[in-house]
Amino acid sequence: MSRIDLRSDTVTKPTDAMRQAMATAEVGDDVYGEDPTVRRLEELAADLLGKEAALLVTSGTQGNQVAIATHAGRGEEVIAEAESHIFYYEAAAASAIAGVQIRQLAGRRGALDPDDVRAAIREPNVHHPRTALISLENTHNRAGGTVIPLDNLRRIRAVADAYGVPVHMDGARLFNAAVACGVSARTIADTVDTVQICLSKGLCAPVGSVLAGPKAFIERARQWRKRMGGGMRQAGVLAAPGILALTEMVDRLADDHVNARRLAECLAEMPGVKVDLETVQTNIVIADIGATGLTVPAFLDALAREGVLATSFGGSLVRFVTHHDVSRQDIETAADRIAAVVQAGARA
Amino acid sequence: MSRIDLRSDTVTKPTDAMRQAMATAEVGDDVYGEDPTVRRLEELAADLLGKEAALLVTSGTQGNQVAIATHAGRGEEVIAEAESHIFYYEAAAASAIAGVQIRQLAGRRGALDPDDVRAAIREPNVHHPRTALISLENTHNRAGGTVIPLDNLRRIRAVADAYGVPVHMDGARLFNAAVACGVSARTIADTVDTVQICLSKGLCAPVGSVLAGPKAFIERARQWRKRMGGGMRQAGVLAAPGILALTEMVDRLADDHVNARRLAECLAEMPGVKVDLETVQTNIVIADIGATGLTVPAFLDALAREGVLATSFGGSLVRFVTHHDVSRQDIETAADRIAAVVQAGARA
Amino acid sequence: MSRIDLRSDTVTKPTDAMRQAMATAEVGDDVYGEDPTVRRLEELAADLLGKEAALLVTSGTQGNQVAIATHAGRGEEVIAEAESHIFYYEAAAASAIAGVQIRQLAGRRGALDPDDVRAAIREPNVHHPRTALISLENTHNRAGGTVIPLDNLRRIRAVADAYGVPVHMDGARLFNAAVACGVSARTIADTVDTVQICLSKGLCAPVGSVLAGPKAFIERARQWRKRMGGGMRQAGVLAAPGILALTEMVDRLADDHVNARRLAECLAEMPGVKVDLETVQTNIVIADIGATGLTVPAFLDALAREGVLATSFGGSLVRFVTHHDVSRQDIETAADRIAAVVQAGARA
Amino acid sequence: MSRIDLRSDTVTKPTDAMRQAMATAEVGDDVYGEDPTVRRLEELAADLLGKEAALLVTSGTQGNQVAIATHAGRGEEVIAEAESHIFYYEAAAASAIAGVQIRQLAGRRGALDPDDVRAAIREPNVHHPRTALISLENTHNRAGGTVIPLDNLRRIRAVADAYGVPVHMDGARLFNAAVACGVSARTIADTVDTVQICLSKGLCAPVGSVLAGPKAFIERARQWRKRMGGGMRQAGVLAAPGILALTEMVDRLADDHVNARRLAECLAEMPGVKVDLETVQTNIVIADIGATGLTVPAFLDALAREGVLATSFGGSLVRFVTHHDVSRQDIETAADRIAAVVQAGARA
Repeated sequence: MSRIDLRSDTVTKPTDAMRQAMATAEVGDDVYGEDPTVRRLEELAADLLGKEAALLVTSGTQGNQVAIATHAGRGEEVIAEAESHIFYYEAAAASAIAGVQIRQLAGRRGALDPDDVRAAIREPNVHHPRTALISLENTHNRAGGTVIPLDNLRRIRAVADAYGVPVHMDGARLFNAAVACGVSARTIADTVDTVQICLSKGLCAPVGSVLAGPKAFIERARQWRKRMGGGMRQAGVLAAPGILALTEMVDRLADDHVNARRLAECLAEMPGVKVDLETVQTNIVIADIGATGLTVPAFLDALAREGVLATSFGGSLVRFVTHHDVSRQDIETAADRIAAVVQAGARA
Repeated sequence: MSRIDLRSDTVTKPTDAMRQAMATAEVGDDVYGEDPTVRRLEELAADLLGKEAALLVTSGTQGNQVAIATHAGRGEEVIAEAESHIFYYEAAAASAIAGVQIRQLAGRRGALDPDDVRAAIREPNVHHPRTALISLENTHNRAGGTVIPLDNLRRIRAVADAYGVPVHMDGARLFNAAVACGVSARTIADTVDTVQICLSKGLCAPVGSVLAGPKAFIERARQWRKRMGGGMRQAGVLAAPGILALTEMVDRLADDHVNARRLAECLAEMPGVKVDLETVQTNIVIADIGATGLTVPAFLDALAREGVLATSFGGSLVRFVTHHDVSRQDIETAADRIAAVVQAGARA
Repeated sequence: MSRIDLRSDTVTKPTDAMRQAMATAEVGDDVYGEDPTVRRLEELAADLLGKEAALLVTSGTQGNQVAIATHAGRGEEVIAEAESHIFYYEAAAASAIAGVQIRQLAGRRGALDPDDVRAAIREPNVHHPRTALISLENTHNRAGGTVIPLDNLRRIRAVADAYGVPVHMDGARLFNAAVACGVSARTIADTVDTVQICLSKGLCAPVGSVLAGPKAFIERARQWRKRMGGGMRQAGVLAAPGILALTEMVDRLADDHVNARRLAECLAEMPGVKVDLETVQTNIVIADIGATGLTVPAFLDALAREGVLATSFGGSLVRFVTHHDVSRQDIETAADRIAAVVQAGARA
Repeated sequence: MSRIDLRSDTVTKPTDAMRQAMATAEVGDDVYGEDPTVRRLEELAADLLGKEAALLVTSGTQGNQVAIATHAGRGEEVIAEAESHIFYYEAAAASAIAGVQIRQLAGRRGALDPDDVRAAIREPNVHHPRTALISLENTHNRAGGTVIPLDNLRRIRAVADAYGVPVHMDGARLFNAAVACGVSARTIADTVDTVQICLSKGLCAPVGSVLAGPKAFIERARQWRKRMGGGMRQAGVLAAPGILALTEMVDRLADDHVNARRLAECLAEMPGVKVDLETVQTNIVIADIGATGLTVPAFLDALAREGVLATSFGGSLVRFVTHHDVSRQDIETAADRIAAVVQAGARA
């Protein structure tokens, strides 16, 4: 029985072309700034994102944390959505490393209300941390891979400008957002000062993310990367597949979105399974299985025995993610197997 | 015209007895543990709060921050109400100094829902910070000086025990809560592991707070106090009025509560002023002046010209606090002056 | 038998005038900037030290740590003498709170070699922390209360200026240095950007220190003081004796210096006791008792039984400190008792 | 003209076998613990180093910093050699991230005196940070690639055991030490609790280091790696060449040592160039060119024009490092070119 892994797009494996690119990459010592492939990737990413400069980092978490530490000083405050990755999934690194406090605002489908942002920006007062950064996540993982509407981004940008606060975007899945909106990544990135994108996840590179922003910012970010141990040597071996990720793998994300939609529609029809189809905008599907009679662990175990992998998402929620290594046929097969598990659960 | 200062109970001045106590206090070098008056205060506070040991600190902020740094390690998480003092008014010190992340839960009149607390405690996962502490504020300042019901505290305690998470109480105004509930401070403090109380504020001591908890905890807290510069020398001069604060000044808080109630009722009848009387449980009154036609700065300025001082509390909110240096007659006078300002504003 | 406490000048008790000043101090809420006595102290200290502004803090450690956190960002470097108080005795607060690394240079009698300072200032390089501060201690406690020569301070100032690095002085005993040199405190403080002085220690105030520097620096320092919990309310009760410390108690430090000299000369003649008389420049005497046949704990215990208290200073060293509460006669008595202990030790 | 790059062994490029291994590596998502090649590398490294477990990290700096943060809490102290990499070249990360203070002890050829270590371990005292770790560097870079003698390591171990302090080794070039001593890496690593080794540098892997230690320690280290952004996805592409680094590339380090020796002997005979031949124990040569009449920048520029690259090492020092991509013939050529530069400098 074939295994269909819908836990995350992080499980995607490098393509053959990527493997070949690693094997033949021209490399140098990037700590000395001499790896030509890293330089090529950084220039390409900066260009795609409309920023002056870019920096290869080892993960999305590193890209976000380097950005936060570079934007904000100890004892300052960062506004972010209440379930954003930087707050929820980065092991409190923003407080542990940068020494900043994250102010959590509840969003709607991952999008912050610009009025809430305005109200959260601190007035000068010895008791208040200075608001040093607004951080947005696009697409928003815990909201179900939702796209932050361009109009929302522009209104938040306007608030940020009015108060002189910079904006960072955790764009781990920025290209999913761009493909879903039918705009370029650059159009989205134009609304923020700095942006982090992942080369792995849906784009299939084995390792790596890129942080892009103003030249002076990236220079300072380089030292924070060094502190966190992200200064690599012949990093061209990672940059080479990264270049393919950005040049060859973006358009095909549309297939993942179609597949997620299909899976969501199948799930929505299963008895006891609830899916908010309006949140299924990219490659993530969140299903509430609370009414199936199965607990999440029991559901996931039964599913795994059928060769389908998904993840617990808190409470009675389960997350499914589509990606390069899951075909349309796999989706149909997965839907059938899930239906069988749900049915068996109902009988039990 | 007499000045009536309702900005905060922090403006209370030491009583004559306190001044006398300072002048005659027996002192020693407390860094060597040799100040007998400090020891006496610490023993008294520990006893009143039902804890093994206590530590004199220079402020409520220091008591809270020492507690957080002693309870939690870098990169861990503290659950607190979304507008609690440790998050809102301590200049992000918990992140800057202890390196912890505060998870903000919206409470009802300052009280957290025990189910929300349970849901917020993190499961072990490399992406998750460990939940190291639950911090409660009683009375809750930004909720309007509300008392956290004993039953609520006990239910949160039960959740905490189930997960092995300690509980700290920011009891800057704990004695107001005790007086309002008609229970001892100890009965309240029994629901938490560590508690911080202020000797200044309503209790009138000029400077100082006390952190109480288990003996081993207080020993470790002593070094965090030292790091923050809270190790004082002949601190008996502060402990002496602190002893009077705890022994002579608690019962009279009831007067402040009556005065706050009276002020709140007057305010509630003024045109354009809204007060949620259910939140007026102790010595704080929050009034929404949004419908008076006055902005908060204009309102406060006009009031100040009439000799009444209050503070902006965000948006269209104004806070009034009653205390030892404000008599019943002052309250009547203040109410009249506020009414005049509101009326004039309506005409303008 | 009278107790003669030579452990530290921190044991000095407030004078009667100070107690009276506390009892009658005009006070206000200093967090609102409304305590007139605190303002008066801060203006007086700024003036005495030739700085634009000053800030009352609760201890020398707090003054130093607030200064470091205000001067330097996370991941920057502070140059200091290898046994300076900020490195040796502040529980690693500079790293824990400010997140800075202290580069330790071995001094000569507490004074850094300006060439060593120059060589230690980092060149720009992604591997190097930026050198954000040079911190000097005057008098230098672990070197034996030695005075840093004015010429040395000026040469370090020149190095600092050449590289654009600010200089802080831990002047916990700055007035001892000034009295010993016969210059004003201001003449010494002119060589540095910011300076911390203690009101307790030899100047006898019960609690408190002052940090002085440029106006904009002190404004930012105020928030760091708040984070560490040093924002106090009616702090005038501490400022009032602090004013007396600065106006009444400085000149008499000369007596402490004479007494220390006398004690040092007595000690130097005892068999098995070594004192480097050249380091006895102020009110501290370091004696090496290694050749007496007594261990330090045994020596201190025997001495305590005779009513004389001193402290272990590492290895075979013992520290004696003279101060306001020790008279010339006490010194003679102490010397006799020490001699008896040494003699008895030799016989044992 | 061929370029001979003696700046660092970090410039080594992956071998053809390594490139092939990357291209064909079996991979999985290592954040889920499912990359078989990463697991294989970690088991291999743990075995070679005699530790229970190991963790792939992205750099030596990350390995060291993860180790420090896992061993030590905020406000604790780490003893290290005064010019050790963790203090000198990691951008103050130990203070910025872990919040620890590094106590710098001057070593002899990189080796700490065990008596100095013993004296530096702090006694319990509220003013003292707890000594949480002793960190050793082997080989020691700034001492000239010197090997820390096994006997010295064992004596430090004995001191550490007596005080219950753990020991970490920055073994970025541990295999150079092992080859130079003729012992196994494990024999050396047996003297410490945790050890970090680099797969890049002399061993030629493009990216990566490994941290090894007790199982429970490595589990906690995994979360610190996550915080710093070192959690990678299909990291098998880096682990595969890492396995070759450990299995195929260690023995040939002996050639680098012979080459360094030869270069050092040539340098030592050049007029105005001083080399302490006793420090030339592995693949690093430090030359003092102070007496050649050339400044370091002028010397390095002239050398670069001749196609030989070296690095400034502070003051009048220049560092040369031999490695896989420099042949014996290259050394002879480099020596001739250096001699020409020195001669020309003397004439200028």
